[in-house]
Amino acid sequence: MTEEIAPRTGVAFTLDKGRTLTVIDPCGEQVADLLAFNRADVGEGLSGGRTLDYASKIYLTTGDPLYSNRSNVMLEIIADDVGRHDFLLTPCSKDTFRIIYGDKDPHRGCFGNLAAALAPYGVTEDMIPTAFNCFMNVPVDGKTGMLTVEAPLSKAGDAIVFRAGMDLVIGLTACSALQSNNGSFKPIHYRID
Amino acid sequence: MTEEIAPRTGVAFTLDKGRTLTVIDPCGEQVADLLAFNRADVGEGLSGGRTLDYASKIYLTTGDPLYSNRSNVMLEIIADDVGRHDFLLTPCSKDTFRIIYGDKDPHRGCFGNLAAALAPYGVTEDMIPTAFNCFMNVPVDGKTGMLTVEAPLSKAGDAIVFRAGMDLVIGLTACSALQSNNGSFKPIHYRID
Repeated sequence: MTEEIAPRTGVAFTLDKGRTLTVIDPCGEQVADLLAFNRADVGEGLSGGRTLDYASKIYLTTGDPLYSNRSNVMLEIIADDVGRHDFLLTPCSKDTFRIIYGDKDPHRGCFGNLAAALAPYGVTEDMIPTAFNCFMNVPVDGKTGMLTVEAPLSKAGDAIVFRAGMDLVIGLTACSALQSNNGSFKPIHYRID
Repeated sequence: MTEEIAPRTGVAFTLDKGRTLTVIDPCGEQVADLLAFNRADVGEGLSGGRTLDYASKIYLTTGDPLYSNRSNVMLEIIADDVGRHDFLLTPCSKDTFRIIYGDKDPHRGCFGNLAAALAPYGVTEDMIPTAFNCFMNVPVDGKTGMLTVEAPLSKAGDAIVFRAGMDLVIGLTACSALQSNNGSFKPIHYRID
């Protein structure tokens, strides 16, 4: 059964080892921030730094494992219609909107949505790491090191599928930052199989 | 007074708000992994994801602030002889040496050295984020996203200087990974002014 995450909101749910999570962009050009924690000990969470190090690349796709801060495989990408996701930047937050957008009364962003959804599982704000940002398009200029946030390459119905390497708590959003989603806020769909 | 960190070891020390920390590569081509925690509450630590997001670039140098996971400025780079440091990859660890190098009896690496040095300040292993890797040279191919670990650009005596934005606990190493240091392990020097 496919579930919907409303625009600028987030959810948390459990995903058992061996099951698959399909994250779908139903309208196109919409980012979904993904977090994962070991359900048996939420001190173990997704690590972009370890994952990129072991992969020797910043763009991950089918076949690539996502490692924890203890170097265990939390998720493996087993299908991917898009091939461009970001694992460099933290979830958008009040601070993002204040610092980058100059907002006076900022939305709580993916960070606030993830923190609220994950709190019942014992995950605190300080434990929220850089997320795997499904469909987020962040090209890096290899010469200068400059990065930009561009429109996602995802088209309506495109998906990325993960298989769980351990029993997990997942946090997932429909991203709240204008720039990341080409200027509009759309829902995200997901399905567990 | 200049202090020496022996090859493949690490230290922790306090740095008061407003003071400067100079990290020196005395022999050239040697990386130093740097961590910072809020001394009043070590739940607040360096965040690569927030820093790169706000800077819109992956290579930081003079004038760039390093932000915490709560979006406060922990350190600002106020001088830099080298201009190439890494903020993408986690400290090398037993896991790095096992997964990337295939070592049977791996060294504890910068991760183990930082964990041991920071433990007396209440920092646990799970709280160790991606470090700011002084002098580490990780070019990224903007087209493919592939990254490589190359010889540091630092020459003997080159330094990077940080000013503390709050009262900090600092973790600092002479990096333990062959690839990061062009095949040999050398000391790191530092000075507090």
